[in-house]
Amino acid sequence: MHSRIETSFNQQAMMSTLGAKLTDVSAGRVIITAPILPTSTQQQGFGHAGLTFSIGDSAAGYSALTMMAEGQEVLTTEMKINLLAPAKGDYLRATGKVVKAGKRLVIVTAEVEAIIGDQATTIAILQGTMVPVNLQS
Amino acid sequence: MHSRIETSFNQQAMMSTLGAKLTDVSAGRVIITAPILPTSTQQQGFGHAGLTFSIGDSAAGYSALTMMAEGQEVLTTEMKINLLAPAKGDYLRATGKVVKAGKRLVIVTAEVEAIIGDQATTIAILQGTMVPVNLQS
Amino acid sequence: MHSRIETSFNQQAMMSTLGAKLTDVSAGRVIITAPILPTSTQQQGFGHAGLTFSIGDSAAGYSALTMMAEGQEVLTTEMKINLLAPAKGDYLRATGKVVKAGKRLVIVTAEVEAIIGDQATTIAILQGTMVPVNLQS
Amino acid sequence: MHSRIETSFNQQAMMSTLGAKLTDVSAGRVIITAPILPTSTQQQGFGHAGLTFSIGDSAAGYSALTMMAEGQEVLTTEMKINLLAPAKGDYLRATGKVVKAGKRLVIVTAEVEAIIGDQATTIAILQGTMVPVNLQS
Repeated sequence: MHSRIETSFNQQAMMSTLGAKLTDVSAGRVIITAPILPTSTQQQGFGHAGLTFSIGDSAAGYSALTMMAEGQEVLTTEMKINLLAPAKGDYLRATGKVVKAGKRLVIVTAEVEAIIGDQATTIAILQGTMVPVNLQS
Repeated sequence: MHSRIETSFNQQAMMSTLGAKLTDVSAGRVIITAPILPTSTQQQGFGHAGLTFSIGDSAAGYSALTMMAEGQEVLTTEMKINLLAPAKGDYLRATGKVVKAGKRLVIVTAEVEAIIGDQATTIAILQGTMVPVNLQS
Repeated sequence: MHSRIETSFNQQAMMSTLGAKLTDVSAGRVIITAPILPTSTQQQGFGHAGLTFSIGDSAAGYSALTMMAEGQEVLTTEMKINLLAPAKGDYLRATGKVVKAGKRLVIVTAEVEAIIGDQATTIAILQGTMVPVNLQS
Repeated sequence: MHSRIETSFNQQAMMSTLGAKLTDVSAGRVIITAPILPTSTQQQGFGHAGLTFSIGDSAAGYSALTMMAEGQEVLTTEMKINLLAPAKGDYLRATGKVVKAGKRLVIVTAEVEAIIGDQATTIAILQGTMVPVNLQS
């Protein structure tokens, strides 16, 4: 399971652009971390909402993928993000979780934290839906 | 008004990373375009949901900023995206619009289209809330 | 088509409880109106968010149903509502529209207006997803 | 604190129409239960999404109100609901929680469960924003 997630993650050029790393994978739960690169900021120098969204969405998506059969992928069909605090700190950590894995739809959530030293502050919560699709061979 | 939006846009390093351009600014409506760079893709080679979200969110945010007094900024507090079709094509075009500009909250929408030749396909719709904040001087 | 929507609408006891009426049905677009009954209010005497949501969600759902084959129903899988103004006035009018009708998912929006005399004020916008299901016979 | 929540809850005629009860109130957490009345159903005889939304939204709103100063109320500005399973069972239980209580915005979540005997099934999760407002005197 783990290697399948890794393979897909490594194919997401966007994750590499954002400096994101696949940090932890278990059944129904995936953690992605990312620095706040100077190339990922908004106008005030904090991480862009698009950075926070990208790693939250990917963590949620890969948590869904851990529940899928071989030969399946997942695509985001909808995602909602509430931003609670500025994206500033040493790095960001996104934890995606499966709430319900159905055949047609997988409901997921994610939490994104900003880490400063050994303190974690929740900066965003996400709630959305992944759709399983069969990989073309 | 226009120059204020441009100044802020140019400070968003994320927009530059994604190759995004501020294409059109009018009262309550902003258009941002972006290529689908090889550095912005997901695992299947289409544009990452984070790319679509980023330009949709920024277009929506800047449409809100056109309604703000000088010395004010806006921050996204929440945003919901429905993804309708894969992000593939010559480039993406995000149109942000103000639905209601209140003192405390600005409700916005955005539509993201994929352009192939002279055909535009809606690939995402967004609906969210911006919060006006006073710029620190 | 019209009679199928009417039949289903009349089976929604909740619509009757809220005094809601199916006002207009066309392909991909349904209008539901409802009074602000004394039994539908929140603590300040305005219509409850649950009233606004209920008719917006049903209008969106029935707009999706107009695109479905006979023998299919739709269920809401997710819906997001932004509330713009208090639900007060002579009555409420919810207009649901199909944005994209796919085989597996139908993306919909709705707008809810409060009507006072001949003035309409948008009080809410909704964006969500309907899932087609086969009716059990 | 408790009596303030109760007073407001009792003024929500919609809660009475749905047969909802305020079941538990603590700091940042409120539980509302409701039967699935024959007057609250959708076309298949399950609880209407509007019922699930109404009690989830109210539980979330009142969890926010527990964090507010006297003389303040809260209003929902936006709420997103993912529906996971049909609303069927002995009764529904909505648990609202505060994620972050800011001065201008309170971020909340809610979970709605269907109870059958001593089994609870999550049928919906909600994520949204409440706005504190000063009560008019």
